[in-house]
Amino acid sequence: MHATLSGDVVRAGERARERFYDSSGYGHPVDAGALELAPVEAAHLLYRGDLDSVEGPDGTAMDFRAFLESAAVSEIAFLVYKDLRDRGFYLSPARAGWSDSSAARAAVDDPAVDFVVYPRGSGPWDDEVAYRVGVVSEREAVPAGDLGDLVLAVVDEESALTYLATEHREVSGTSEAELPTGVSGELLSDRLLLWDPPAAVYDRGFYGQPLDDRDGDVIQLSLLEAAFLARDGVLDVDGGAEAVVERGREVEGERFDRRLRVYADLRERGLVPKTGYKFGADFRTYADVESVDDLGHSELLIRVLDGGHTFSPRDLALDVRLAHGVRKEMVFALVDGDINSGGPDDDGIEWLSVTRLTP
Amino acid sequence: MHATLSGDVVRAGERARERFYDSSGYGHPVDAGALELAPVEAAHLLYRGDLDSVEGPDGTAMDFRAFLESAAVSEIAFLVYKDLRDRGFYLSPARAGWSDSSAARAAVDDPAVDFVVYPRGSGPWDDEVAYRVGVVSEREAVPAGDLGDLVLAVVDEESALTYLATEHREVSGTSEAELPTGVSGELLSDRLLLWDPPAAVYDRGFYGQPLDDRDGDVIQLSLLEAAFLARDGVLDVDGGAEAVVERGREVEGERFDRRLRVYADLRERGLVPKTGYKFGADFRTYADVESVDDLGHSELLIRVLDGGHTFSPRDLALDVRLAHGVRKEMVFALVDGDINSGGPDDDGIEWLSVTRLTP
Repeated sequence: MHATLSGDVVRAGERARERFYDSSGYGHPVDAGALELAPVEAAHLLYRGDLDSVEGPDGTAMDFRAFLESAAVSEIAFLVYKDLRDRGFYLSPARAGWSDSSAARAAVDDPAVDFVVYPRGSGPWDDEVAYRVGVVSEREAVPAGDLGDLVLAVVDEESALTYLATEHREVSGTSEAELPTGVSGELLSDRLLLWDPPAAVYDRGFYGQPLDDRDGDVIQLSLLEAAFLARDGVLDVDGGAEAVVERGREVEGERFDRRLRVYADLRERGLVPKTGYKFGADFRTYADVESVDDLGHSELLIRVLDGGHTFSPRDLALDVRLAHGVRKEMVFALVDGDINSGGPDDDGIEWLSVTRLTP
Repeated sequence: MHATLSGDVVRAGERARERFYDSSGYGHPVDAGALELAPVEAAHLLYRGDLDSVEGPDGTAMDFRAFLESAAVSEIAFLVYKDLRDRGFYLSPARAGWSDSSAARAAVDDPAVDFVVYPRGSGPWDDEVAYRVGVVSEREAVPAGDLGDLVLAVVDEESALTYLATEHREVSGTSEAELPTGVSGELLSDRLLLWDPPAAVYDRGFYGQPLDDRDGDVIQLSLLEAAFLARDGVLDVDGGAEAVVERGREVEGERFDRRLRVYADLRERGLVPKTGYKFGADFRTYADVESVDDLGHSELLIRVLDGGHTFSPRDLALDVRLAHGVRKEMVFALVDGDINSGGPDDDGIEWLSVTRLTP
């Protein structure tokens, strides 16, 4: 069977509709019983041998090889389309008119979505969408604002695929500790020492780290912990919270302010953030701390980023792989990101979870 | 017992020599039977209660707290010194005259070394060094040129320690494949397709990735693989190797040249580099490939960097932790780094291995 490329659409005749759309969900029917295919769909039909050739605007007949080498179809979109078909899915390009489902129609308005993938057994005639997929090459920068409710299909330089599911989520926990006020601390170059701390600071609040295992020993606080506790009235330090924040900016620049906002927000949401240094992240978090003697597994790894951040897929792969290996979930805290709510609870932080997906 | 701070040395009397040096390896003996201590050693003796106070230049007596808060001693150096002592090691500051051993004297000339650590049971009077340790805060940038034959003791913002062993190493393998010349390939936007490749290209050489599992199927080459094979005469492509390299520079900038040098060097050393994308690295490598049907575990993860690179300890921690989790060794390829050999085998690439260490 033959078809004709015109603009960004490949048109096939009546028999095509029955053979490709009705039975396998390729393309979308148009008036007069014809079928319109996106170039990536036509490429897949050529690859399978279901189409013999596609006629170009200049009248030449293109086989699979010529079509793939032409500018009509992106090779990485083809690789992803083929992989999802191999996995048993029907899918449509995110184009107006290509699918009846309301979920698919919504995806058309999101420029980051390339394909809408239906649940196995469903197709463009159903009203269900399993994944909204965006196709990127390993070398493309991906704006943080594009992510959330999107499966990123990354094609690496050797043409292998990885799927990353990105979702906005809420974070919350039940950790809270009543602490005394006026605990005295001493600022050193980039940490604070509490020489005579009440036990609850560490034991209940899980703030700081003891210098040693000896009872009643010195507690070392990070600058973030100290700034938070000083603002909260718990910590009493020369120069107040501002002196701690100033020191933080000296050693870390504006990143310190961003991290402090996320630290404070996590604490206020009932999570205990501790350093994620060993995992290459900003924080690991514990959702339900009652006492440090009974500490569970930390659930999240948090990386703090500016809302305008663009991800390199390789860095994303590294973070997500590591988190998976240590049984934690990777969550990016996007500060002053593309916040939608704007309501009274809007703290200017968007939480973006990224996990590996096997469709 | 008391001692006196003068410049960057703390002097203690005759009894100190017997008590601190002879029995525990603190300080170094000077004429007239006195003992000189580095401030960090004095801080540790104060912490243990073995020294009662150190007299400052202005005559005030400092206890542990006052001494640690003074400018005389770095708190992060103290944390590392204390941790190594807790682990049962004797160690000396890397200062001229502090140790008799030739290995320790060599460390004095390396500004990246802060402590020389003796094997357990040995001390400054022996001629053995277990570790040369450099102390850094999590927030410090570490020049690549400082690393190699150095254990980096990283103090994170919450005052916990991680040790990273850095070593220069050689890399080599036994992979080699006889390939035909003149294999024809077609350049797409950022990969190449071999439409009719000889089986050995993939099966023996482990170049590229088949588009499908079907026999005799299309092979997809990365731009790196293609540039290498085109230079080698195996691949025949419009515009030759230069056209592939040009495309690589378009999509990746000068990084492409650096990565191609490392790719070619690895191949010439008998390793098969494949993409390390899933591990967030440039390459994973196989040392002994005879056939893709009998592929072993890949041993190394390679990240390609400019020789003038400075590491953030957090990024290092991330790479090393991930490599450890997937049972591979993390190796940085420093291109045009601080190369010492300069001999005929000097390929301008320095291989730096970084692993976690529990002293």
